Amino acid sequence: MSDNVYLAQMSTDMEEARAKASFPVQSMVYLLRGGKGAYEKSNKIRELAEREPLFDKSSLSFQSRQEQLCTSLLISKRLIEMVEENDMDDEQFIALFRHIELLTPLALHYTAFMPVIKAQGTTEQADKWHTAAKRHAIIGCYAQTELSHGSNVMGLNTVAVFDQATDEFVIHSPDITAAKWWIGGLGVACTHAVVQAQLIIAGKSLGPHLFIVPVRSPFDLKPCKGITVGDIGPKAYGGFSTTDNGFALFDHVRIPRDNMLMKFAQVARDGSYTPPVHMKLSYGSMVKLRVDIVTDAAWKLAKASTIAIRYCTVRRQFHNPPSFKLNDNRPESQVISYSSVQHRLMPLLATAYALAVSGESMHQQFGQLMDQLELNNATLLPEVHATSCSLKIWSTRRSSEGIEECRKSMGGHGFSIFSGVSELFANIVPANTYEGDNFVLAQQVARFLLKQLNNVVKGKEITSSTADYLKTLGQGITEPFAFENHNEQILNPQIQLEIFGMRAARLVADLGQQLQAGREWSDLNMECWTLNFAHAEYLILKQMITKVNAMAAVPEHAGLADTMKLLTDLFCLSTLGYSSLATFLSTSTIHPSDLGKLNEQYRQLITRVSNDAIPLTDSFGFSDHELNTALGKKDGRAYEHLWDAVQKNPVNADPENAKLNKLVMEILHRGNNLEYIKAAKL
Amino acid sequence: MSDNVYLAQMSTDMEEARAKASFPVQSMVYLLRGGKGAYEKSNKIRELAEREPLFDKSSLSFQSRQEQLCTSLLISKRLIEMVEENDMDDEQFIALFRHIELLTPLALHYTAFMPVIKAQGTTEQADKWHTAAKRHAIIGCYAQTELSHGSNVMGLNTVAVFDQATDEFVIHSPDITAAKWWIGGLGVACTHAVVQAQLIIAGKSLGPHLFIVPVRSPFDLKPCKGITVGDIGPKAYGGFSTTDNGFALFDHVRIPRDNMLMKFAQVARDGSYTPPVHMKLSYGSMVKLRVDIVTDAAWKLAKASTIAIRYCTVRRQFHNPPSFKLNDNRPESQVISYSSVQHRLMPLLATAYALAVSGESMHQQFGQLMDQLELNNATLLPEVHATSCSLKIWSTRRSSEGIEECRKSMGGHGFSIFSGVSELFANIVPANTYEGDNFVLAQQVARFLLKQLNNVVKGKEITSSTADYLKTLGQGITEPFAFENHNEQILNPQIQLEIFGMRAARLVADLGQQLQAGREWSDLNMECWTLNFAHAEYLILKQMITKVNAMAAVPEHAGLADTMKLLTDLFCLSTLGYSSLATFLSTSTIHPSDLGKLNEQYRQLITRVSNDAIPLTDSFGFSDHELNTALGKKDGRAYEHLWDAVQKNPVNADPENAKLNKLVMEILHRGNNLEYIKAAKL
Repeated sequence: MSDNVYLAQMSTDMEEARAKASFPVQSMVYLLRGGKGAYEKSNKIRELAEREPLFDKSSLSFQSRQEQLCTSLLISKRLIEMVEENDMDDEQFIALFRHIELLTPLALHYTAFMPVIKAQGTTEQADKWHTAAKRHAIIGCYAQTELSHGSNVMGLNTVAVFDQATDEFVIHSPDITAAKWWIGGLGVACTHAVVQAQLIIAGKSLGPHLFIVPVRSPFDLKPCKGITVGDIGPKAYGGFSTTDNGFALFDHVRIPRDNMLMKFAQVARDGSYTPPVHMKLSYGSMVKLRVDIVTDAAWKLAKASTIAIRYCTVRRQFHNPPSFKLNDNRPESQVISYSSVQHRLMPLLATAYALAVSGESMHQQFGQLMDQLELNNATLLPEVHATSCSLKIWSTRRSSEGIEECRKSMGGHGFSIFSGVSELFANIVPANTYEGDNFVLAQQVARFLLKQLNNVVKGKEITSSTADYLKTLGQGITEPFAFENHNEQILNPQIQLEIFGMRAARLVADLGQQLQAGREWSDLNMECWTLNFAHAEYLILKQMITKVNAMAAVPEHAGLADTMKLLTDLFCLSTLGYSSLATFLSTSTIHPSDLGKLNEQYRQLITRVSNDAIPLTDSFGFSDHELNTALGKKDGRAYEHLWDAVQKNPVNADPENAKLNKLVMEILHRGNNLEYIKAAKL
Repeated sequence: MSDNVYLAQMSTDMEEARAKASFPVQSMVYLLRGGKGAYEKSNKIRELAEREPLFDKSSLSFQSRQEQLCTSLLISKRLIEMVEENDMDDEQFIALFRHIELLTPLALHYTAFMPVIKAQGTTEQADKWHTAAKRHAIIGCYAQTELSHGSNVMGLNTVAVFDQATDEFVIHSPDITAAKWWIGGLGVACTHAVVQAQLIIAGKSLGPHLFIVPVRSPFDLKPCKGITVGDIGPKAYGGFSTTDNGFALFDHVRIPRDNMLMKFAQVARDGSYTPPVHMKLSYGSMVKLRVDIVTDAAWKLAKASTIAIRYCTVRRQFHNPPSFKLNDNRPESQVISYSSVQHRLMPLLATAYALAVSGESMHQQFGQLMDQLELNNATLLPEVHATSCSLKIWSTRRSSEGIEECRKSMGGHGFSIFSGVSELFANIVPANTYEGDNFVLAQQVARFLLKQLNNVVKGKEITSSTADYLKTLGQGITEPFAFENHNEQILNPQIQLEIFGMRAARLVADLGQQLQAGREWSDLNMECWTLNFAHAEYLILKQMITKVNAMAAVPEHAGLADTMKLLTDLFCLSTLGYSSLATFLSTSTIHPSDLGKLNEQYRQLITRVSNDAIPLTDSFGFSDHELNTALGKKDGRAYEHLWDAVQKNPVNADPENAKLNKLVMEILHRGNNLEYIKAAKL
């Protein structure tokens, strides 16, 4: 079976789309990846990783979860060897570990257990435990969530009772609702857990504190005395399948007093308790987790949109205009040329850029916050906290929905595991819930904004740069934005921000009015939710505009500024006219009669971004290995790669095939069917 | 570890919620399940199924896909045995097969292969093949889709060339793009395929026709000569994992001329071709598939909302009003009491009811259509086709989004496989694509509506009862609906329909105007999409209202009519005020100033439905076995069931555990770590 016109056409379609680039693609890669230097550095790590056959994730699709855990442990081990072989420092190791993008049983050892010991332990504690952890003489996890308590940390049921007679803490789970649950690394791998438990001294509860509890012997991995421990089983959509989220029950487990992390709070030999004086730094680490989620959501959406746009570029289906006659010899149309496909994918592509830019900006704000906190100054905390919550909510929601929309846009093959898209969804969707359930966090954002509103009402100056739009409320305008020239105005960054700010301000004001009118806070969850979307979209638009301005001022980026402006405009208009249209209209920020003209502008933007769609996805700089897709590889030969992927399916080879055949034959040859088959010549 | 207050509270919470029923739950079960007689009949089947340990799906979660295929074949075999043991007729078998709700390798043997032979084969062909299929002497599949052609059936690449010399057809795949792909049952199980291929006689292409092609020997399952066949591998989100979607390539495979299904078109010995004269009946079966999808979407959403509402009823988290002090002894709040949870789940519960009612109504319309078609009268076809497309699009989209929202509302544990919700998503989400991609079908609905619009413009009477709202266009009203008394009017069914109809009519008119203004049809995909949602919501509302009226007139249902009216109102107001708010505002059907008062009414409805939420989920009549969930069982003891489910995890027992431990120890004991562990007493 030889190559045919159709298959050759796929390469040609991809090359032609690539050749249309209106901007220097490699410069955009550098820009998105933190500069040429950083890109080349990470490229070395990538090359190292891509030489390891073990790191090829394509075979994971065929493995049972038990086999995936084995593979994941082999990869963990290989990573440690590579650090030694290549004499890598911590930063290089983290870069390599991140590049693999696999949640291994050791992931939280590195990202939670070791950091928390450093941050919350005394110098002596860090000396002992961090050192042991670094050489992998112990493997640790961070055990906070319980079977019946996730969001409400104050309500945790595990207790740590101080026994002054023996100078020990007794860690205990009163019943199964107190079982630690969902703890990454606890299922199979870890020997030690940092356990969050209610500290109790002389019958008095002092709230949750952290304790290092040995859970399995580092010699033979047998559970320690009094500990019931195991893996909580498979997760939704095949997500997190390579890690061992686990549970543990503690039955009066005794640990030395020294095992309480005592950098901030202390319990002395005589049971006297010194409360923490200085907790702000620990808030910083929660902010950091959310900032990282925004970046993760950005790059996962970037991957999904790259795969979908590439596949839709090379897939052809139906003639345009349609013909219903046989033997239509025209080539069918590229799926990417359909208006529905462009409308679904181009705004998601713009969103991936917007989130990448916003994530980068958040990292900078986080750096400033940490610098301040180190000086015991927490001025920035409320605002950076609110921003990180707002963007965490928005990015996880839009990214998971967007990734699934990418998958749907790929037609039937999008439902194959080899599209590589469903795995992205499975691994980002839980971020809607963890590190603060989105609906719970939305209330915190709303409270922050109401405080700012309160300042406005009191005539105080708003110091917050993220809620500066509230100033407009003083102007008392309640009418829709009055366009004079739609085309010109809607591409003007100041006017874009004014419109996004008007909407957010009106929603804050409305929430304030409802509270004043006597509505209970608990009845206003959805108002907080809606408001958060408006606030987040204002923040993102503002960060994009700031980025465009900054780029225009730097010679090496100036050639890219127009492209970033184009993406900013598409983000703005698709939000305004589609994804968030309801609230622009319900707040009367936009009048329905303006929608027709805004839509004309939107259509032009879609066309322009579509022309650059392949270059814009190439600009993310993904290698085929990173994307782990058959359908969205760089060369565009999707059908051949899909064919190849399927040939590795163990179902098609013995022993699996023989085993399945045997079962089918038990059905086919029931009763006297064998004679029947012969007689009827079937 | 003994039972505690918290665990006991879960039962109490569930019992109390159940006791609040404002309507007779068992009567509602009968209503939804087709009457008392039908319910009791299906209950017998259910009892039969639930006695079979093999049919307990909970262990599937721990199996590899290969193992799942084995289990699925064992279940297929057991089903056949049960038919014999219990002397079941075809109808009972289908009921049992449906009850298992498992896509086995034989599923399409029953639902596609056998029906298509009956429908498209001659009497002699049916005698031979249908009889053999019924006794499982052969297992068949229906092979239409190809690697490069799904939506565009006319573009299929497989050919069936008539060879007059030998009186055979030569089935051939010119290249891999012509490989049959996604074919259920082809991966492992089937011996024969009904293959859709381009019929070619004397070099002339006559379009796609159907051919019975042996693919594997019924003696030993070896692939037949010239055939490359296998399983296409795992699917997204773990969906369809128990079936063997397969591929096949044909290399000049010869079949007798008799193997073409010749009920409608014929090829004679001399190669002369008789085209079909009478194809309408085959359109009927496509409509049927879509009608079934609507019902499936309804009941899957019903399951997800049942699980989520039950779990949120027994889960408690945070105090209300919040306290930040330690040792707050108040019980925490039931999660179902949160306004965000009610707002997310109650409209979905109403939607499940609405879709169940609409699906039932569609089945009736389909019956009428088939009666007509049998008489060679296709008057009803365009309208029933459009309605089935419109509801298929709406139901699959809303159901998959809704199921995932149910999962999110369950917090962290929603991400466990044992929630049972992710499986529902995984198995309904591909229905957005198959039997007509939703975005492609939306254009067909729009074309139907434009035809009706054309009739209006020409002053003809609209015969369509589904697009009757277009009549209002003649009245030339373009203003928002003018409320006089919001509370009273918005609960008036006539006014509800008027508002939903106004919006749909304006969107049809707008589409027509854009075409008239010279916009290309291919640029209007999204307008078709938006219009379809408005049309579907009008249809569903109308069917709900009809149902309420019909119920009020039947004594045994009259006591339920108020409850169905309540659900209808919530469907109406949540669509109007939330899920489709954007188009009600953008078409100026509703003025933003009316939203406050409509929202007050909406809040009241949410409260009323929330009070009846557990009874309304009980009314679906699901058994715990059917729901296959740890978190949403009838008794409300979610945490204990989750604990029990996890104890069966093979990762926690040998040999798996020993295998994994060994790998972890290879990491822990690297270098001289063993000595270090001893020395440091870790």
